[in-house]
Amino acid sequence: MTQRLRGVLAPVVTPFKKDYSPDASRFVRHCKWLLAHGCSGLAAFGTNSEANSLSADERMVLLDQLLEGGVPAAQLMPGTGCSALTDSVRLTAHAVKLGCAGVLMLPPFYYKGVPDEGLFRNFSEVVQRVGDGRLRLYLYHIPPVSQVPITLGLIARLLGAYPQTVAGVKDSSGDWSNTQAMIDAFGKQGFDVFAGSEVFLLRTMRAGGVGCITAGANVNPHGIAKVYADWRSPEAEALQAASDKVRQILQSQVSMIPALKAAIAHYADDREWQTVRPPLVELALEQRAKLVSELFGAGFDMPGIKR
Amino acid sequence: MTQRLRGVLAPVVTPFKKDYSPDASRFVRHCKWLLAHGCSGLAAFGTNSEANSLSADERMVLLDQLLEGGVPAAQLMPGTGCSALTDSVRLTAHAVKLGCAGVLMLPPFYYKGVPDEGLFRNFSEVVQRVGDGRLRLYLYHIPPVSQVPITLGLIARLLGAYPQTVAGVKDSSGDWSNTQAMIDAFGKQGFDVFAGSEVFLLRTMRAGGVGCITAGANVNPHGIAKVYADWRSPEAEALQAASDKVRQILQSQVSMIPALKAAIAHYADDREWQTVRPPLVELALEQRAKLVSELFGAGFDMPGIKR
Repeated sequence: MTQRLRGVLAPVVTPFKKDYSPDASRFVRHCKWLLAHGCSGLAAFGTNSEANSLSADERMVLLDQLLEGGVPAAQLMPGTGCSALTDSVRLTAHAVKLGCAGVLMLPPFYYKGVPDEGLFRNFSEVVQRVGDGRLRLYLYHIPPVSQVPITLGLIARLLGAYPQTVAGVKDSSGDWSNTQAMIDAFGKQGFDVFAGSEVFLLRTMRAGGVGCITAGANVNPHGIAKVYADWRSPEAEALQAASDKVRQILQSQVSMIPALKAAIAHYADDREWQTVRPPLVELALEQRAKLVSELFGAGFDMPGIKR
Repeated sequence: MTQRLRGVLAPVVTPFKKDYSPDASRFVRHCKWLLAHGCSGLAAFGTNSEANSLSADERMVLLDQLLEGGVPAAQLMPGTGCSALTDSVRLTAHAVKLGCAGVLMLPPFYYKGVPDEGLFRNFSEVVQRVGDGRLRLYLYHIPPVSQVPITLGLIARLLGAYPQTVAGVKDSSGDWSNTQAMIDAFGKQGFDVFAGSEVFLLRTMRAGGVGCITAGANVNPHGIAKVYADWRSPEAEALQAASDKVRQILQSQVSMIPALKAAIAHYADDREWQTVRPPLVELALEQRAKLVSELFGAGFDMPGIKR
């Protein structure tokens, strides 16, 4: 069994070529840069990866290419939750077969207002059909985007049914009281709670959580990793504040994913990175100027990102 | 070129076996019953078809099976809009190749708050990549579920770019003023506006629309077809009221899709029809009793549905 992932995980942004096809070589390079600069793991194919703009086949091919490129499966927690049960099963089985440390699973997100019983059946079918004791399933709670919440009641039921498999949650509700409630309710049962944004990292660690899985780690892994490494130290608050400052700049742009890619494009001096797949749209020239200027003003850098 | 579809279209409910795999033979049978009892077309793989709980491959196999089973491609408008651009392209190309009269296309629905420019690029990429003059694209506006609207501005831009391809819309906003605005703005340019519910059918026809694509047609195609056939007659209001009564009963149940399937299961005397794929949940015994009792009380029947 692989070790449980903890610390700072990046939902790795997926680079595209001009024709919107995934760019495996840039993807591998960015993953390695992230692991070398503070990330303990990679939640590839998350929301910020534009994973839901990729077909199941595209995701599986890219995951194969990551491993072939030398990214260790033991540091991967790919997103495998789809709208269709059969896709979720296929992606999850593939990830487990490759030896990934875990999978991060969205609930089926097209139908809204579905009962917890239906969500339980969905996750339960995935666990049973994959049928592999190595599966470590992390639930992905992101109601602002999925519009389908993962309630405390659902977690309790899944943990009761699959205590060895259900390993934790990423809470991207943006609501600290919910993260706190998840830790309080399940943290002592070996259920690992990750904050969905680095702004909650210090609070998460102090409350008994295990880290964060956050878009900001694509750009500022080193800054966020310092908060994680030194969360018990007297400098923790200052490190959190420094990390928050970068997050604030990224988040205040017109759209988060294009902003992350624009920042990488700038510091890597590689304009190809700006491309996003529809329905997203890349930042305009003046939006990029504003972003770069704000990051520059904050003294921010991405050391080693330039080839 | 096939003739434009008009009238009453059903987003055909997809039957599943106990193991949640699609049941092609019941599917073909139900499609044929619908066409024999008032439907002029079939919007297979719509919201009420649980299409977004099916993988792209499952949808393509089922479409093949419909045609092999004798359902005419000229009466089919399959749903082909997915969260991933590449899936939408694949499903659309497949439907066009088979000679389907049109496709009903959801916008990519995972990412919320995306700009119209991004949605335009998505649909535009689909049209260009499919690259087939036979494609007739119907936009699917269902903000209560997709949470991603298709605005009048987006329609204008798509119609301007692809006047031969962009053929119409299904408006499932539930907001009559929006349907009216779509008809007023584009109805005279050969853009066919379908109401998303039979409750708007008479108003839609009077305003210059072309019919409805509605969940209720799975159960009450004959009643809704009467409204369509006689919308200019003095009986139109009474026919609309009779159709509304059935819709009201279906819609007042705990959940629409399980209610449609429970009604079919009852009248076809075929309990297999009750199965829904997770995250949906079938009606409980007492919920079925309530539904059947209300339909019975209204004197409703599904003639010829029993084998």
